[in-house]
Amino acid sequence: MKSRYKVTFQPSGRTVHVLAETILFEAAARAGVLLQSPCGGKGTCGKCRVRVVEGACAPSEACRSALTEEQLEEGYRLACQAKVGGDSVVDVPDASLYEASTKILTSGEGRELSGQPAVWKRYVELPCPSSEDAVADLRRLEREIGKVHVHLDVMQGLPNALRDNAFKGTAVVCSSRLLAFEPGNTEGQCYGVAFDLGTTTVVGELIDLTTGRELAVVATMNPQISLGDDVISRITRARETPGAVEEMQASVVGALNELIEELVAEADVPQEKIYEITVAGNTTMQHLFCGISPAALGEVPFPPAYNRTLMMTTREVGLRVHPNARLCVFPNIGGFVGGDTVAGILANGLHCTDRPAVLVDIGTNGEIVLACDGKLFTTSTAAGPAFEGARISAGMRATVGAIEKVVMNGEDLVYNVIGDTAPIGLCGTGLIDLAAVLLRAGIIDATGRVLGKEEVPSSVPSALCSRLHERDDGQVDVLVASAEESKSGEAIYLLQRDIRELQLATGAIRAGLNIMLQRCGLTADDLSEVLIAGGFGNFIRRGNARRIGLLPNIPSDRLRFVGNASSMGAKYVLISEEARGIVESIAESAEHVDLSMDPEFQMEFGMAMMFPEDA
Amino acid sequence: MKSRYKVTFQPSGRTVHVLAETILFEAAARAGVLLQSPCGGKGTCGKCRVRVVEGACAPSEACRSALTEEQLEEGYRLACQAKVGGDSVVDVPDASLYEASTKILTSGEGRELSGQPAVWKRYVELPCPSSEDAVADLRRLEREIGKVHVHLDVMQGLPNALRDNAFKGTAVVCSSRLLAFEPGNTEGQCYGVAFDLGTTTVVGELIDLTTGRELAVVATMNPQISLGDDVISRITRARETPGAVEEMQASVVGALNELIEELVAEADVPQEKIYEITVAGNTTMQHLFCGISPAALGEVPFPPAYNRTLMMTTREVGLRVHPNARLCVFPNIGGFVGGDTVAGILANGLHCTDRPAVLVDIGTNGEIVLACDGKLFTTSTAAGPAFEGARISAGMRATVGAIEKVVMNGEDLVYNVIGDTAPIGLCGTGLIDLAAVLLRAGIIDATGRVLGKEEVPSSVPSALCSRLHERDDGQVDVLVASAEESKSGEAIYLLQRDIRELQLATGAIRAGLNIMLQRCGLTADDLSEVLIAGGFGNFIRRGNARRIGLLPNIPSDRLRFVGNASSMGAKYVLISEEARGIVESIAESAEHVDLSMDPEFQMEFGMAMMFPEDA
Repeated sequence: MKSRYKVTFQPSGRTVHVLAETILFEAAARAGVLLQSPCGGKGTCGKCRVRVVEGACAPSEACRSALTEEQLEEGYRLACQAKVGGDSVVDVPDASLYEASTKILTSGEGRELSGQPAVWKRYVELPCPSSEDAVADLRRLEREIGKVHVHLDVMQGLPNALRDNAFKGTAVVCSSRLLAFEPGNTEGQCYGVAFDLGTTTVVGELIDLTTGRELAVVATMNPQISLGDDVISRITRARETPGAVEEMQASVVGALNELIEELVAEADVPQEKIYEITVAGNTTMQHLFCGISPAALGEVPFPPAYNRTLMMTTREVGLRVHPNARLCVFPNIGGFVGGDTVAGILANGLHCTDRPAVLVDIGTNGEIVLACDGKLFTTSTAAGPAFEGARISAGMRATVGAIEKVVMNGEDLVYNVIGDTAPIGLCGTGLIDLAAVLLRAGIIDATGRVLGKEEVPSSVPSALCSRLHERDDGQVDVLVASAEESKSGEAIYLLQRDIRELQLATGAIRAGLNIMLQRCGLTADDLSEVLIAGGFGNFIRRGNARRIGLLPNIPSDRLRFVGNASSMGAKYVLISEEARGIVESIAESAEHVDLSMDPEFQMEFGMAMMFPEDA
Repeated sequence: MKSRYKVTFQPSGRTVHVLAETILFEAAARAGVLLQSPCGGKGTCGKCRVRVVEGACAPSEACRSALTEEQLEEGYRLACQAKVGGDSVVDVPDASLYEASTKILTSGEGRELSGQPAVWKRYVELPCPSSEDAVADLRRLEREIGKVHVHLDVMQGLPNALRDNAFKGTAVVCSSRLLAFEPGNTEGQCYGVAFDLGTTTVVGELIDLTTGRELAVVATMNPQISLGDDVISRITRARETPGAVEEMQASVVGALNELIEELVAEADVPQEKIYEITVAGNTTMQHLFCGISPAALGEVPFPPAYNRTLMMTTREVGLRVHPNARLCVFPNIGGFVGGDTVAGILANGLHCTDRPAVLVDIGTNGEIVLACDGKLFTTSTAAGPAFEGARISAGMRATVGAIEKVVMNGEDLVYNVIGDTAPIGLCGTGLIDLAAVLLRAGIIDATGRVLGKEEVPSSVPSALCSRLHERDDGQVDVLVASAEESKSGEAIYLLQRDIRELQLATGAIRAGLNIMLQRCGLTADDLSEVLIAGGFGNFIRRGNARRIGLLPNIPSDRLRFVGNASSMGAKYVLISEEARGIVESIAESAEHVDLSMDPEFQMEFGMAMMFPEDA
């Protein structure tokens, strides 16, 4: 029996290698396929149903009670219950996807967006002018499509566009603005692109605005990385290097243009039929994308330049789609609570939840949103880059070669490596897993100290114990992968100071969350939901996150992974004009809490750095 | 005693040469100084009061009863009554000007525009960001100036503009759009330019938007003239010559840019402090200015491309003022009823008059507006170019050397020449005067035939009679200026066919007016006012215009010259945001009457070509 299996998800064809016994739901998330999970993975709602068409994924008890014998025969499983038992191919029905693509549903019941995109097309056949009907060309068109504002170039082209085509053609309208008048009936070709503009990664999704369906998704590194690894280094560059803002803007716009070309190639649609682009990112990334200096974000009190949705034409920033296409950049709430958080609030319906709920985006900056009594409180907390692998001795991003998962298997730990290769280092989820495993075994104590071989409880299996290596200074390293196993030929260790970095990161997020709860007179128990957003959040094992204190100790069914909420929010605004209005009011009404101003924060932070005694 | 005198009007310093006995009101109009005249020149309202500071202008009876002895001593006169009796210098008080410049009054009583310009400035001193107050830069500003939309470049510049100037500066807002944020307090520098875009002439007025005062007026020829003399030839060029629309747009935009430079030089204001430009012109001129082909205006049923106010930034057409300045081009009502007519309706309050009234703009196209029962009916009628001197054998435009006025002086006629030089030809007003003089003398009969020496009544003085020269074909020419008098050394004649051209022109306008009146069940007597607009209209002698049938035979106090109503309307929109809304609703609600569709038109036209039997 192999210890790792390859799982391919259809129809996307995405493939991952996971440890044996990994639940399908987790494997799917790792592959970027986010499934529905309203019951929180308890196997009771049946919403995450998939069909295993090749390979072996044994049905659990919950599968047997939720599905008929016939369905089980056909390979149907509950993804949150069935475990990978061999190389498999799994069909994912649309209905099981977290984002139902044709209909926008926010997280709660009955909270639907009306779903009319700002951009729409209408094919018209107008009567030709006659002596009895000599109205202006524009009014002739408006009798069919209603009153519109007109771009000058459209107005300039309209008389000929009408006369060259016997007064027939397709009007393209965006929020009462006539973007174009095209020959023939092009009603079926109406596209938009939603961008999630991350510090590290940029994700673009091509959306068919007539159906709301996603036609293609592409991603690339944010090329600004070469000019600064994280938000702070780019702010510093903007402050210190003349021309840096323009340079960084040009580089990210170039990346978006490349993604647009990939998207239209993949979906085989005409580039000039893209009429709207939405962009959600953190405050700094949005500033740089718009060519607005983020210099003030490098200095107390970190005020953003703008707090409003910025609307412009795509050509103003140099995006190559329809020249009159609208560009909508999300509003910011604070210097480190940006459009991505606003998008996440929208996508998860936090603005209209009636029970206290929290959204946490775990990254270098942990953004926290608490919805309570119809109000939104937001903050950001400097978690540091531990979750992204930085400042961890063997740390790395979650890319090929990263140990992304660590579990106990009998007497020793085993790990899974992204891309099924020899390990290069540890990414954030692997780090959390490893810390949780060591905490449970008693090798790390509540203060975060790694115990020596002589100090560990006798219950620690000898295989695990043999991984501990005491240094001359008394600090203890944990061997994760031996020199033989590792790609580089050098052993991979977890060091004492890596645990300290992890404590700083988890402490910052937990302290932030605790302060926010205290402000509203709540405890973690009062929360109806804790939503974990962000690409990283997707892959965290809930139990392990609770064990190290990153997440509060509340039942699993109240902890939900909501995937790339920023991307989803950006898409919502494309698909629903109403959503754009909601975004505006979210940014306007959300209260931004500055943790550095809170006298309790240091105390909370210190306490939150301790690992919970039990969990 | 000289037969002509020089009159200078202060404070503008404009000078004209006029015949002795010319009333001051007319002399002022000729100098481009339009005075108030609510009583229609009867000398009863006292609104046209001026002060003769040099020279002799004897007071009339009406002056004596309207003014005190002391005022008469000081040189005060009623301009509509006092006649020029010598070279004079005349002071014109602001209050006597037709356009009171600081307060917009439409023609009727109590019809004031609220007078808030779309563009306004506010100097602000914002609190610097602090930990207690870390809101976005934009919101910080908006707390002072209210919510605004922001141009991308303003947003890009705002963070530095605030920080480089200790968070002080001047916000420039146009219709809730932040156009600029300027260092220091520039509240006092807020300008706009209103353009009257004629086929022949372009007039620009620089307005101080903080006071509504006119700072400078300049004019130039429309350079498109070199590409086509009139509207039709430019439409033809647009239809037939590739690139002609772009060429004509560039040429007129170039002319406007030159005027802008003249305006700012004359008034000594910074060019980049011009934040709004309004343009009113006929349908074809507006199309060409915007780069919209007027090709369809050359073909039945002459539909314009647009009927809406076009709003854009000035840089979209290439005007060199503030780069974010707003450009507002007037809406069109029909193919030959354009923004100039809409502006005229606005300037004269025709949209809100409660008694039937008519506005006539006399030119190559006579535009007629009839206001009746809260409705506006508009039409245009092809008067031909006679009034502009074209197709008249000795015709010319109203420029230096043109005989602009003809009167009987004892037994013979005398004329006045623009610029006080030897005559070159006849312009429109001179033509009307001459025809009226000859009609009154009985030299021309009601059919328009010029009688021979033997046919004229015996009452015709011999001096006048000796001006008649019968040709071989029996047609009779009238000598206007002898070879010795004329500039070229060739005699200036009025020919029989010149009278025919005049009949076509007057007939077209009267027929149009009559049809409009009939449609509304009105006669000319029912009209409370007939407003004569256009540069040309200013200089027509009312009695003569009535005599030749151009104007209906109604009392003088119901005939008003309203000057360059198009220019005034363009200015109103600069000064009052409310006016822009009114303009939009005028264009939307006005009914356009196509005379060519009216079965009665040919009959009316034929009848209107006859000169009235008496008048």
